[in-house]
Amino acid sequence: MAQNGYRVAVVGATGAVGTTMVRVLEERRFPVRELKLLASSRSVGKQISFRGAQVSVEELTEDSFQGLDVALFSAGASVSRRFAPIAARVGCVVVDNSSAFRMDPHTPLVVPEVNPHAVRHHQGIIANPNCSTIQMVVALKPIQDAVGIQRIVVTTFQAVSGTGMKAIQELRRQVEATVKGEPLPQEVYPHQIAFNCLPHIGSFLDSGYTEEEMKMVNETRKIFEDPDIQVCATTVRVPVYYGHSESVAVEMRKPLEVQDAVALLSKAQGVQVVDDPLAGRYPMPLDAEGRDETFVGRIRKDISIPNGLVFWVVADNIRKGAATNAVQIAELLVQEGLL
Amino acid sequence: MAQNGYRVAVVGATGAVGTTMVRVLEERRFPVRELKLLASSRSVGKQISFRGAQVSVEELTEDSFQGLDVALFSAGASVSRRFAPIAARVGCVVVDNSSAFRMDPHTPLVVPEVNPHAVRHHQGIIANPNCSTIQMVVALKPIQDAVGIQRIVVTTFQAVSGTGMKAIQELRRQVEATVKGEPLPQEVYPHQIAFNCLPHIGSFLDSGYTEEEMKMVNETRKIFEDPDIQVCATTVRVPVYYGHSESVAVEMRKPLEVQDAVALLSKAQGVQVVDDPLAGRYPMPLDAEGRDETFVGRIRKDISIPNGLVFWVVADNIRKGAATNAVQIAELLVQEGLL
Repeated sequence: MAQNGYRVAVVGATGAVGTTMVRVLEERRFPVRELKLLASSRSVGKQISFRGAQVSVEELTEDSFQGLDVALFSAGASVSRRFAPIAARVGCVVVDNSSAFRMDPHTPLVVPEVNPHAVRHHQGIIANPNCSTIQMVVALKPIQDAVGIQRIVVTTFQAVSGTGMKAIQELRRQVEATVKGEPLPQEVYPHQIAFNCLPHIGSFLDSGYTEEEMKMVNETRKIFEDPDIQVCATTVRVPVYYGHSESVAVEMRKPLEVQDAVALLSKAQGVQVVDDPLAGRYPMPLDAEGRDETFVGRIRKDISIPNGLVFWVVADNIRKGAATNAVQIAELLVQEGLL
Repeated sequence: MAQNGYRVAVVGATGAVGTTMVRVLEERRFPVRELKLLASSRSVGKQISFRGAQVSVEELTEDSFQGLDVALFSAGASVSRRFAPIAARVGCVVVDNSSAFRMDPHTPLVVPEVNPHAVRHHQGIIANPNCSTIQMVVALKPIQDAVGIQRIVVTTFQAVSGTGMKAIQELRRQVEATVKGEPLPQEVYPHQIAFNCLPHIGSFLDSGYTEEEMKMVNETRKIFEDPDIQVCATTVRVPVYYGHSESVAVEMRKPLEVQDAVALLSKAQGVQVVDDPLAGRYPMPLDAEGRDETFVGRIRKDISIPNGLVFWVVADNIRKGAATNAVQIAELLVQEGLL
């Protein structure tokens, strides 16, 4: 460890994930010696509070990374594609929250509770998986380790914060307009999101799947280093501010009793089992907001196949699904002596 | 047909489904000679409009059904259990929207587009299936007929109107309170429904499934008269007023190409295919509100198994999921000369 901590940058510092990255760095007491907040020119001069001080946002340029140890990127794939290699070249390790490098074979794709070892092979850039993938693999990890996973059928209920600040505002404004009886503003999503469900996250591919759905397929295989895991995903945007929920049906390679699955999940890293439905206890996005754990409940036998398990998994998509996972990767780099 | 139409009762006439039954009887020009609106004593005297006239709500008693031809019940299972046999005994055929008789072996469970023949064997009571089952079997019917269904994995996104008028008010009041910064009222659901998802519809059973989930299993088998269809359901309440959405993954007994499935669905009775995702067209609850069709889209190959198909199905839960299906059963009784 550097004597007085690390010189850290957050790229995309004014976004929904970027501001949370700053908060999570503070909360988790990441050893920050110097914090540099980077964003596009239109955010320059904005102030973000960190450990009681106000830090000014600076413009992201090719020279921004000189002398830095680690940069957490969350400014979209095109910014990452341009600037992450520049940062890596000057020795600033990049933890990238965009999709730019996730499937690159030279870039580790890391969820610290699931495949921490992968971080060791980094070549300057480590990718943070997609939010909907992260919480699913955290919950599936003990099952994959115990009996192996054959197939996953997953349907998501994704919060608007996953789209960013403007989408949070859009839901809020649509709801306000509904209450006031005014026409609903609509800019971010192709259809009204208030009181609606949109089976559309990311662009559509020729196969009929969306990019988001294929991320869940491909990233799951890469993280588990198991190309034989079959995944069928349907990703849906719902009028929730924070917290993605997922209905997961998993076909296992060997039998696993429900109570054994519950026992494994109960001691799994990063997981909190919330599963007492008769007492009204199950994971919900409202409860997950602001938390770092992945909440698993409704754990039951899949009655439609021999070796099946069904559960409901919820996490704060901005925290565990993005900012917290990125900071955890940085912590892992510290532990492994890689910073 | 009776010379001037039929004497029709709606039981539970002031509820979310009952009021819609009256509207659908009018819209579809069901041959009503006399309309009797029945409810509990506290609704007596309320007026509901039918064909331009105001009809007064009367108290439901054991004598209410004398001289009537058909009664559409939607007042809960206990009311149905008590009064439906009384109605049937005096020759008034009951179409029951509650769960009371659905799994009774002597009671047909009918979706007119799927198993119209079943209505012929009625013994005075015909059951209307659960809302979430109806729209799923309408969409699955052409697939079952063409290649047979082995297994269904379904996750639902259910509107608050399925719970009734009070739940619609609860979502509205919670949203208003959020906008005004006031404390949120909460009476109907065990947790806040605004900006949240509740994986909890109906009571929980020892198996960990809810009653709603098991309805989708058992009713699907009964309607298709195929006890070998395996179903795994997860049912979730979402902050939507009208329209249930369902993510359905179906494993078929024989191969069926996606384009053939689309062709079959396009000509299936009661189905409207909305599937041009690149143009932003897919089924959504907001679009289904007030409609009688079952909307199917996002039709694609399940890439995780050989003979799999995935789709997204949306219908107005109060109309096709309840009131419209009940009126269609009454129309079927007329067509079959059974009234």
